[in-house]
Amino acid sequence: MEEITKQVSEITVSLDMLWVLIAAAMVMFMQPGFAMVEAGFSRAKNTANILMKNFLDFSVGSLMFWLIGFSIMFGTDLGGFIGMPDLFFSGSYGNDVDYAILIFQTVFAATAATIVSGAVAERTEFKAYILASFFITAVIYPISGHWVWGGGWLSELGFHDFAGSTVVHSVGGWLGLVGAATVGPRLGKYNGKRKAIPGHSLTIGALGVFILWFGWFGFNPGSQLAASGLDNISAVASIFVTTNLSAAAGTVTAMIISWMRYKRPSLGLSLNGALAGLVAITAGCDIVTPGGAVIIGVIAGFVLIFGVEMLDKLRIDDPVGAVTVHGFSGAVGTIMVGLLATEGGLFYGGGASLLGVQALGVISVAAWALAMGFILFRTIKSTVGLRVPKRVEEEGLDIYEHGETAYDNLT
Amino acid sequence: MEEITKQVSEITVSLDMLWVLIAAAMVMFMQPGFAMVEAGFSRAKNTANILMKNFLDFSVGSLMFWLIGFSIMFGTDLGGFIGMPDLFFSGSYGNDVDYAILIFQTVFAATAATIVSGAVAERTEFKAYILASFFITAVIYPISGHWVWGGGWLSELGFHDFAGSTVVHSVGGWLGLVGAATVGPRLGKYNGKRKAIPGHSLTIGALGVFILWFGWFGFNPGSQLAASGLDNISAVASIFVTTNLSAAAGTVTAMIISWMRYKRPSLGLSLNGALAGLVAITAGCDIVTPGGAVIIGVIAGFVLIFGVEMLDKLRIDDPVGAVTVHGFSGAVGTIMVGLLATEGGLFYGGGASLLGVQALGVISVAAWALAMGFILFRTIKSTVGLRVPKRVEEEGLDIYEHGETAYDNLT
Amino acid sequence: MEEITKQVSEITVSLDMLWVLIAAAMVMFMQPGFAMVEAGFSRAKNTANILMKNFLDFSVGSLMFWLIGFSIMFGTDLGGFIGMPDLFFSGSYGNDVDYAILIFQTVFAATAATIVSGAVAERTEFKAYILASFFITAVIYPISGHWVWGGGWLSELGFHDFAGSTVVHSVGGWLGLVGAATVGPRLGKYNGKRKAIPGHSLTIGALGVFILWFGWFGFNPGSQLAASGLDNISAVASIFVTTNLSAAAGTVTAMIISWMRYKRPSLGLSLNGALAGLVAITAGCDIVTPGGAVIIGVIAGFVLIFGVEMLDKLRIDDPVGAVTVHGFSGAVGTIMVGLLATEGGLFYGGGASLLGVQALGVISVAAWALAMGFILFRTIKSTVGLRVPKRVEEEGLDIYEHGETAYDNLT
Repeated sequence: MEEITKQVSEITVSLDMLWVLIAAAMVMFMQPGFAMVEAGFSRAKNTANILMKNFLDFSVGSLMFWLIGFSIMFGTDLGGFIGMPDLFFSGSYGNDVDYAILIFQTVFAATAATIVSGAVAERTEFKAYILASFFITAVIYPISGHWVWGGGWLSELGFHDFAGSTVVHSVGGWLGLVGAATVGPRLGKYNGKRKAIPGHSLTIGALGVFILWFGWFGFNPGSQLAASGLDNISAVASIFVTTNLSAAAGTVTAMIISWMRYKRPSLGLSLNGALAGLVAITAGCDIVTPGGAVIIGVIAGFVLIFGVEMLDKLRIDDPVGAVTVHGFSGAVGTIMVGLLATEGGLFYGGGASLLGVQALGVISVAAWALAMGFILFRTIKSTVGLRVPKRVEEEGLDIYEHGETAYDNLT
Repeated sequence: MEEITKQVSEITVSLDMLWVLIAAAMVMFMQPGFAMVEAGFSRAKNTANILMKNFLDFSVGSLMFWLIGFSIMFGTDLGGFIGMPDLFFSGSYGNDVDYAILIFQTVFAATAATIVSGAVAERTEFKAYILASFFITAVIYPISGHWVWGGGWLSELGFHDFAGSTVVHSVGGWLGLVGAATVGPRLGKYNGKRKAIPGHSLTIGALGVFILWFGWFGFNPGSQLAASGLDNISAVASIFVTTNLSAAAGTVTAMIISWMRYKRPSLGLSLNGALAGLVAITAGCDIVTPGGAVIIGVIAGFVLIFGVEMLDKLRIDDPVGAVTVHGFSGAVGTIMVGLLATEGGLFYGGGASLLGVQALGVISVAAWALAMGFILFRTIKSTVGLRVPKRVEEEGLDIYEHGETAYDNLT
Repeated sequence: MEEITKQVSEITVSLDMLWVLIAAAMVMFMQPGFAMVEAGFSRAKNTANILMKNFLDFSVGSLMFWLIGFSIMFGTDLGGFIGMPDLFFSGSYGNDVDYAILIFQTVFAATAATIVSGAVAERTEFKAYILASFFITAVIYPISGHWVWGGGWLSELGFHDFAGSTVVHSVGGWLGLVGAATVGPRLGKYNGKRKAIPGHSLTIGALGVFILWFGWFGFNPGSQLAASGLDNISAVASIFVTTNLSAAAGTVTAMIISWMRYKRPSLGLSLNGALAGLVAITAGCDIVTPGGAVIIGVIAGFVLIFGVEMLDKLRIDDPVGAVTVHGFSGAVGTIMVGLLATEGGLFYGGGASLLGVQALGVISVAAWALAMGFILFRTIKSTVGLRVPKRVEEEGLDIYEHGETAYDNLT
């Protein structure tokens, strides 16, 4: 009897951790999703550069998060603000099952970093970008992450961000916003009037979005961090459904608005509508109904269209829409939890307290990311330099920065 | 003891449902597979359009199947013909584990819808296509699906279609056939003599087929809907093997026939040979031996080559071969179950009764899909219109229908 | 009690085998990874050909490994050298769970075969390549595989190659080396001085590497062949971490060296650096620490850069770097186990005996693969012919060998 109890207990842990590991692999696979979206939405002459940035930020992020980032995010809480730094994932994380959490959290950290590359695409120095990735995964992301997921002050207040609309996506979005504003718009983007600069391959962009949608089934349901027992598996199943419905609603909404507003249903905007729906549902995917998920997706579709327009009016040049998709949709989705959460949401009789905490969390994390981004990008700009020379930008970053072109020997 | 029994029972459910959910993610990932196959096999000027169709049919399908389709397919049986419609997946589906089944069935429904886009590619109005997707996932697919998987009349007769050669693929194929015939061939396809119109990227097409092959390891083995216990896991393992061998045999067969018949081994036909093998094994993947799977794959390879030729002679223009791959191979594969099923198959001493039921099922579902497709596409044609104007077709659907081109800023 | 013990025992098997099956699907998905890497690194005019080779070697390999290869690798040991051949995976492999092992091992065998296509790309006859694939998966790979994983003489000596740095990757690499040397360099590669021949799409190449990185989370952790119980799931989790860190370190190292040596950080070399890190960690992923994994990745990054340079000096033309990535890195990674294994490694006080066995294994398998490759490619050369005619090579293999071009109707 004792033996069988132990076996059952071990199987429970095994099933939980296996799901976390499979989900981690799916989230890692979001990296080519981001890479393809950003490559497809950029011009061919800058494609090797954008691929290289995506590829390196994942590598640098994996090393830095293991080296120091994980401990800052999840180490012993110091005053609600930061975890105790600890090199090489050692110390209190003694047993091997911790490695499942390390890899899962590593791929999340890399997601936050990789969002930035899209916002600053087509005119940023490669070495500047690598430096930024370095600090984002080692310090900036782990600290605000600690507030919410590491036992810090926002978690104490009851802030609800299940899988990271705010912790992961909006942090990446706000950093991208500061980065894009600091580096300035691409040449020719705002010469007198605003000019669209189409990317070089919607095929590659669409592939990327499909990959991200798939990976999100690891991102959100994997954040349950367990699969055994009826409660856990029910939660995981329900999160699959809410995640998918919000993405679908975001897509259809963005398509309809683009159709009405610009006379034609736009593929580019529909693709970003799906991503907006996915980002927005991420905070509350565990605590809203399928109907609630559709509402969140619809609102994310609106946010996408008008967010992109607004940024463009402000002459902040975000080539792939990363700030809107991850920053604005992440913030709005997190706040919607205060309205639509079946436990504590305003529309479900929970009063306004959760809504207040959600707004506070969104604002605090935004303030942190914007402030740190300001320091980071200003410092880089005044030291190693942030922007490539005019001639490099005109002729393409690929050949000057990497000595390669993405496309060659085509005939 | 009672406690441990409950725990074990919950772990059993958890393991089963986790497998269904992972399989659902893999089947969802077949969507970019279809999108890449269809994009690669179409001309560059229509690529944004075909991507948009694939992207939207999944979104619309996800919403419609949750809204109404699921209940029509799996709701309380009404006379063997249809399930009781019930809005928003509520009513009798009370607990959250049902959500695992909902998402799994949703991605299947979306598969049936997406097949059609390939058959009608490069000349169909976007809004017409969205309307068709809407009715397919909300009504047409769920009703014939109810006959087989929802407790309807064909399931009563013992019709065997394990993962949907007929329920999913041939329904999509027959709807595509009617669609392609109704909308008519592309301009220049049959001017006097038949003319091949190559797609714009076999690289993208091959990527799509590889993705589909991968996704099929969710599609077929996931349809076991369980993984715990020796019987279930053995079945899942066996289905992995039969699925893979049939695909391999279909590939090699199509290559050899194309080599003998057209003097050179064709990549395009080999890719479709793999898909034909995958579609054909889907009905009987659980009930044939590995050797039986190879036979089914070989036959599917023949069906592919001669089916494509036949349709071309009939001047029905199917740009990506969807009707042959999904319709013909799905039908033939379903009938082969009557011969090769180790339980009940003619070649295993089971007599002709299963064979008869299989043929009846194939014919009934084909009649349903063809008839409903006829009504659907005729109605669309005479109301909103089915085909784009000549000038749009000549210059490309992308720019006129979506205001975008798939490829831009290439230098 | 007896009933519950049986249930728990069955769930244990189910969980283990489900993990093996999911991992098998992930490893199968490495096929499009290889296909995209090789296609991206080749010229557009040979792309259909390279895709066709990748597609067919998986199909032929799946059939041959089921037909005969598996039994040669895992059948009853005959003198430590070979397993008892047995057709159609029958005989002693009676129950269906064996099918999980069959499919897992099939996708490994196909990996070894597919490596060769990259090394001989852009000038090899299609039928010659198919013949080579046939013999590799049916005979060459299974025999050396038997030595290590099938109970043969190297396993008796304690040779440690957990997931196949040597068994899978270096066998593929050495066969590719002989193939590339036998077929000779591409036209124009070594006319007086060495000339780089860039591939046609780094986008497709980068996508392939990302896919391979993802698939490796099936390849290495899946090789645990179990997930239930704390020991197994801890091992699986740890392998996720070591695999990822080595890949990241390989990437960063290759980037830095390319930056210092060639003045610019090269995307092409960074991508291959990731693959080198993945190949190198494969042998010891279960038995080194995360820090050890980083060291192995760093060394793999060096091996990559200098291996590619060395081969080029020897005027052996390997268009995609397969020999260096799989052969050299596989060998070095296997030997590093003798230094860094926490049990038995020289640096952990284990003495030099494991190191000696590792070196012996690497050399023996290399000798086998090189000798068999020599016989295979010489025989093919002097019978059906190995190299396409000059005109075919100049104008592209696609149109002559397959009657297709990868890209068409681009406007």
